Amino acid sequence: MTEQIHELYQQTRRQSEIFCQPLCLEDYGLQAEPFTSPPKWHLAHTTWFFETFLLKPYLPDYQSPEPRYEVLFNSYYNGIGAQHPRHQRGLLSRPTVAEVMQYRQIVDTAIASLLLNPHPEQAEIVPRVRLGVEHERQHQELFFTDLKYSLATNPLAPAYLENTGRPATTAPPVTWHDFPGGLHETGYEGDGFCFDNELPRHRTYLAPFSFASRLVTNGEYQAFIDDGGYQRPELWLADGWTTVCERNWQAPHYWQEKDGERLEFSLYGLRPRLNEEPVCHVSGYEADAYARWAGARLPTEQEWEQVASGDPGPVAGLDDGYLHPSPARNEDGIQQLYGSCWQWTQSAYSPYPGFRPSADAIGEYNGKFMSNQWVLRGGSCVSTADHVRPSYRNFFYPLDRWQFSGIRLAQSMQAE
Amino acid sequence: MTEQIHELYQQTRRQSEIFCQPLCLEDYGLQAEPFTSPPKWHLAHTTWFFETFLLKPYLPDYQSPEPRYEVLFNSYYNGIGAQHPRHQRGLLSRPTVAEVMQYRQIVDTAIASLLLNPHPEQAEIVPRVRLGVEHERQHQELFFTDLKYSLATNPLAPAYLENTGRPATTAPPVTWHDFPGGLHETGYEGDGFCFDNELPRHRTYLAPFSFASRLVTNGEYQAFIDDGGYQRPELWLADGWTTVCERNWQAPHYWQEKDGERLEFSLYGLRPRLNEEPVCHVSGYEADAYARWAGARLPTEQEWEQVASGDPGPVAGLDDGYLHPSPARNEDGIQQLYGSCWQWTQSAYSPYPGFRPSADAIGEYNGKFMSNQWVLRGGSCVSTADHVRPSYRNFFYPLDRWQFSGIRLAQSMQAE
Amino acid sequence: MTEQIHELYQQTRRQSEIFCQPLCLEDYGLQAEPFTSPPKWHLAHTTWFFETFLLKPYLPDYQSPEPRYEVLFNSYYNGIGAQHPRHQRGLLSRPTVAEVMQYRQIVDTAIASLLLNPHPEQAEIVPRVRLGVEHERQHQELFFTDLKYSLATNPLAPAYLENTGRPATTAPPVTWHDFPGGLHETGYEGDGFCFDNELPRHRTYLAPFSFASRLVTNGEYQAFIDDGGYQRPELWLADGWTTVCERNWQAPHYWQEKDGERLEFSLYGLRPRLNEEPVCHVSGYEADAYARWAGARLPTEQEWEQVASGDPGPVAGLDDGYLHPSPARNEDGIQQLYGSCWQWTQSAYSPYPGFRPSADAIGEYNGKFMSNQWVLRGGSCVSTADHVRPSYRNFFYPLDRWQFSGIRLAQSMQAE
Amino acid sequence: MTEQIHELYQQTRRQSEIFCQPLCLEDYGLQAEPFTSPPKWHLAHTTWFFETFLLKPYLPDYQSPEPRYEVLFNSYYNGIGAQHPRHQRGLLSRPTVAEVMQYRQIVDTAIASLLLNPHPEQAEIVPRVRLGVEHERQHQELFFTDLKYSLATNPLAPAYLENTGRPATTAPPVTWHDFPGGLHETGYEGDGFCFDNELPRHRTYLAPFSFASRLVTNGEYQAFIDDGGYQRPELWLADGWTTVCERNWQAPHYWQEKDGERLEFSLYGLRPRLNEEPVCHVSGYEADAYARWAGARLPTEQEWEQVASGDPGPVAGLDDGYLHPSPARNEDGIQQLYGSCWQWTQSAYSPYPGFRPSADAIGEYNGKFMSNQWVLRGGSCVSTADHVRPSYRNFFYPLDRWQFSGIRLAQSMQAE
Repeated sequence: MTEQIHELYQQTRRQSEIFCQPLCLEDYGLQAEPFTSPPKWHLAHTTWFFETFLLKPYLPDYQSPEPRYEVLFNSYYNGIGAQHPRHQRGLLSRPTVAEVMQYRQIVDTAIASLLLNPHPEQAEIVPRVRLGVEHERQHQELFFTDLKYSLATNPLAPAYLENTGRPATTAPPVTWHDFPGGLHETGYEGDGFCFDNELPRHRTYLAPFSFASRLVTNGEYQAFIDDGGYQRPELWLADGWTTVCERNWQAPHYWQEKDGERLEFSLYGLRPRLNEEPVCHVSGYEADAYARWAGARLPTEQEWEQVASGDPGPVAGLDDGYLHPSPARNEDGIQQLYGSCWQWTQSAYSPYPGFRPSADAIGEYNGKFMSNQWVLRGGSCVSTADHVRPSYRNFFYPLDRWQFSGIRLAQSMQAE
Repeated sequence: MTEQIHELYQQTRRQSEIFCQPLCLEDYGLQAEPFTSPPKWHLAHTTWFFETFLLKPYLPDYQSPEPRYEVLFNSYYNGIGAQHPRHQRGLLSRPTVAEVMQYRQIVDTAIASLLLNPHPEQAEIVPRVRLGVEHERQHQELFFTDLKYSLATNPLAPAYLENTGRPATTAPPVTWHDFPGGLHETGYEGDGFCFDNELPRHRTYLAPFSFASRLVTNGEYQAFIDDGGYQRPELWLADGWTTVCERNWQAPHYWQEKDGERLEFSLYGLRPRLNEEPVCHVSGYEADAYARWAGARLPTEQEWEQVASGDPGPVAGLDDGYLHPSPARNEDGIQQLYGSCWQWTQSAYSPYPGFRPSADAIGEYNGKFMSNQWVLRGGSCVSTADHVRPSYRNFFYPLDRWQFSGIRLAQSMQAE
Repeated sequence: MTEQIHELYQQTRRQSEIFCQPLCLEDYGLQAEPFTSPPKWHLAHTTWFFETFLLKPYLPDYQSPEPRYEVLFNSYYNGIGAQHPRHQRGLLSRPTVAEVMQYRQIVDTAIASLLLNPHPEQAEIVPRVRLGVEHERQHQELFFTDLKYSLATNPLAPAYLENTGRPATTAPPVTWHDFPGGLHETGYEGDGFCFDNELPRHRTYLAPFSFASRLVTNGEYQAFIDDGGYQRPELWLADGWTTVCERNWQAPHYWQEKDGERLEFSLYGLRPRLNEEPVCHVSGYEADAYARWAGARLPTEQEWEQVASGDPGPVAGLDDGYLHPSPARNEDGIQQLYGSCWQWTQSAYSPYPGFRPSADAIGEYNGKFMSNQWVLRGGSCVSTADHVRPSYRNFFYPLDRWQFSGIRLAQSMQAE
Repeated sequence: MTEQIHELYQQTRRQSEIFCQPLCLEDYGLQAEPFTSPPKWHLAHTTWFFETFLLKPYLPDYQSPEPRYEVLFNSYYNGIGAQHPRHQRGLLSRPTVAEVMQYRQIVDTAIASLLLNPHPEQAEIVPRVRLGVEHERQHQELFFTDLKYSLATNPLAPAYLENTGRPATTAPPVTWHDFPGGLHETGYEGDGFCFDNELPRHRTYLAPFSFASRLVTNGEYQAFIDDGGYQRPELWLADGWTTVCERNWQAPHYWQEKDGERLEFSLYGLRPRLNEEPVCHVSGYEADAYARWAGARLPTEQEWEQVASGDPGPVAGLDDGYLHPSPARNEDGIQQLYGSCWQWTQSAYSPYPGFRPSADAIGEYNGKFMSNQWVLRGGSCVSTADHVRPSYRNFFYPLDRWQFSGIRLAQSMQAE
């Protein structure tokens, strides 16, 4: 059994390194804003996680190659101690990339030793390793979103990968799917892995609602802009409008115009913007304003989960190898729950009734962020397929735009 | 019938002016922070509300004494047009207090003319006047909270009123009251006045919970401080901890120590702090951290409403004439739902299922604030009794401390 | 002899109060920016100066009416102790205006007692009183500049005084007056009053230069604007250009356009802008950029002083009773050295060779400000005539615009 | 003749690359603050300078390898066009180091072609190349100061070079050297290279002064700290005191204490602090406060130049190969004018009488910075010897501390 978890561990660890291969060495230190982290830091921090929560408590002989990494690569775990200031992660030219790779190697060897030998606390160790694997998967996604953000600040618009071409396509019209409401169970059910914030499974009462078959497209969002969407305060939440004015938002984050051509920056560099692709890299405020303009609203997270629980559909994502949201297909039914863009909900991120974070430092994983953020559901083109599920709760501040976040519409079924 | 609403109007308008009587003329312009407003501005803005939403649309002959007041005294109604910058309200030495009082007089006369003569749109006018009355009651409470905040910045610690003495007292121990949960109706029911954010009444499912009989006291909060409450990040939400560090919070807003004596600033000036009085002027973050430290949590707004719907209890407040929270009485049952401190809930301020703001500028009253704020329930010592009710939803940012905000504890009844 | 100084004292103190008479009570607390002070604060601080530096050290029986004024009305004298935060001066609704007037009365009575009775330290006291008189004259000028700034933030554009009409006029063309340079003495000479920063008188060597006969006018400055002056970085010092971009400067501080009409805010309210009047309320950066555009430069303070020492000309100012800069007259010779606008020089404010500040707290009067500021010379329409002289050194940051600061041009006589 | 300048060009260019050799690739992008630049950016910008001011105007066939470098590597030349934002220089992971080295190679080849072939405008070209060489020497010094600053933010305290050991030493006592004052000539004289800001040579009058034989030491500065230097506002200029309070300065920039040991960060990493070494990395404010505490003052730039003109002494610096200020020797006479620390003067950086910047974009080199900065004279341990001279004017803001800036004392010889 520990062979299985070790194989999963190894596969995940290798994947992180494979994702870095297209980088040049100079890219590993990029940090354009405090909320992004450099590729090298992601590689080191995920390693630190295994070192801190597995090797130090459970492997008595383990010696860290550099005790000062404990502070350098601690993200936000106050229970572990001090942290290197977040906005200065990009200034850590040392350890070098080679040294970080060596650090990974040392930890990987030690984890193998921990897992492949008998250990009296194996029942604690295995779930922790699994948590570390899921943690690293989250950082794989952050690797892409952070890198995209940082590369975009370079006027040379460097591409992570060369564009490989896409078939021309059209997006089908939206159709609406009704759900009757009533008492439902929300939260993770089963015996696989889930995060603490998906529990406990609990009862909620939903009013009847209708759910859009696909995500909002670039073309539809352009119509919102053309209709003065960014100039009309009545469409916005008050804090959203303040943000629009302060940051002078006029379009989604990566949109630009150049010599009359509509472009967007992508992991394939700067390229023409397609009307049929889902609009992406919008804030929660923009998603909410668009929905109001469209005479609809964002779904609640419970509504989204009810829809997804019924028929998950294909859960592609990073596994497809295409690092940009694709248009909906000409098919019936609800599409793009996963694999395209995370979907803003109107739900504030808060604890489920009876929520309890775990007792040690890992308890800082989710619970302490339960204020001022909004829940996003689904998964994106840079999420791995086996990382997401109907009950997964992603969360960001409503003004964040650097994730692959898009818009799913919903409607209340009657004017209650 | 319009005589009744006119009487209510007159009573409310006089009340605002009576509250100003202890001020000296120099106090009318005080604005210590952008989020507070000067007394004179409150007097003018509430008048502007009646002028803008009643007189201009419904009284054709009405002439404003100063057309530029339309901008000067608009708070945040983008539908009406531009607004004088909020942080510069304290710089409006003109119009003078006398001119504002004259403005009030002109509007009062015109409202009397509007209400006491037949009008074809009377069915629209009366509820709008009622909304204006409730709006002015809200500003009466803000008058006190804002004035207290501004006076406290003066090292001379001026009192709004002289202290009139209070009987010594003791607070009873907390008792816990269980509620079974299940399906409940939340939201306003009845044919009296309510705000749009209290509607629609809708069904929610509650898990069983327990509710504390009284508010947390100064003495109990002092124990939290003595136990290192402000130095232990594990007790705090992440955003709360950031705020504690940035603002160097060490105690509730008006607490101070002087020569070893524990004091707090009040509307009666600086005075000794009593252990039995409810702790007040804490942020939502502090309320949440205290609750975690105490092994409890904040109630949800639905839980609070269920409790209050069962037995409202006495709803005193400003009508008692005592401008500071009083200790709980030695009685059984749940106390201090109203009349003492607003109570932070853990609920983010969000729309009820099917919520619809009204269609014109008054639609900006509540809905657009539904992000990043937390709901407070109840009423405080500076709320008027007939202003509050079980379904009333007050809302502030979780870092706000200048309202009379205190702490009510709740508990989930089983580890779900 | 002490009767003379007492008479001067009394005249100056009355003058401060006379200047306040056009105010309404609400104006006394206005503070639009930290660098401005409310009228009431000026009245109290000048009184504090006499209390602190005369009454407390020299009049043993003196009792302050409120010991806490020592902190409240201390501007920046670290030697005296703590200071009320500068940006919160406008929040001191108490003491009231009446209480401050009473404070003035108490101090005036005590000063009379100090001056009109024999005193062993009279030789120290008299010059200190004289310093206090000059200090209050400086605050009389600041009263006007601060009040103008604060009133201008009010969209109602209130006037300090009603406009009393001015004769139409034309400004004569500029003529240039040559000065041969050589060794000169700079600094105050004589046995009257001067500030420590005007000493010691010392030798300097000046190259030949030419000096403009009058100040730059609004019309001339408009030509600079029309020629793209605010859009051309090559005309600006680097820090100046940064400031232009950050603050989006497009014109002098009080200029505005309304319905195509060129206006400026003045102590007489908003009024048409006359081409012939000197341009005023420009920063040092703007003065410098204008001079560069005009193919000239700003004078050094030594050049200015040499010119003024030769023929001071009329030294009118506040005494004329006209609170706005007047056009030059159709006369020969150098005009407008005083009585119109302070004139930016290119000289950084720094100590004269051998400068020594006085030893006690009054030593903080001038010396500690000798960095990052520029010297202005002359006097303005709100300076009293007997306050200014050829050696007087005024100083402000080069980005300051709220003083009555204008532009005098000079030229080097040969390309050395 | 052009061979000579080409040889100088080549030597300088190679030198820049040699200085980079101890770096690891990850260091090339470091930019800890906007005022520092990454090593790679220095390498590219100095190349851009030759491309922009030599190749594009004078070599018609020249093709830039990347036209977008024109914006990317423009520092502040508005005459050339837009500039990549200064604070984002560290985000340019592309071009890579290899690409920048290739850019250098291309430009070097083209410059050789320009210089080694006959050219009708050779008389313009040669002095521009010389300016480019001096410009690159300035950036060689900035390379060291910026790199030191950025490396110091890394808790691992990486060394640029390994420490090579130093002999123990003692600093001789200070002696004072008198200078009689009188009329002197200031500014560059000769037919070698100088910057425009060193001209025109002009007459100034100096009062008699005394000049300290050596720089202030760490030990002496420690005595200032021990005497409460950072807690006594009376020792500071007002802006300096504000800075001390805002930034919480307690010691020179690179000083730290660890387990009771006095350390300082250096280009050799963290190491013990020697009392005999000159204090370094102090701001102008700290230099000024120290001087006041010591009963002396900073010299004027004219005084410094008079002293240095008499007897320049050895002008070692980078050529010694030791990258840290060394103690004074046990010798008579004035020492450490060059090769140790730049010396703050009390002189604001301003134009000499008759100063004229050159007419094209290179005119932005010096003149536009003539406000708010202070002049430093001398040269430091990271200045090349043939770059400095008695008339050289270095300039920084008085709060800057990241240069190798130290303290030279002077005194006025009589209380004038």
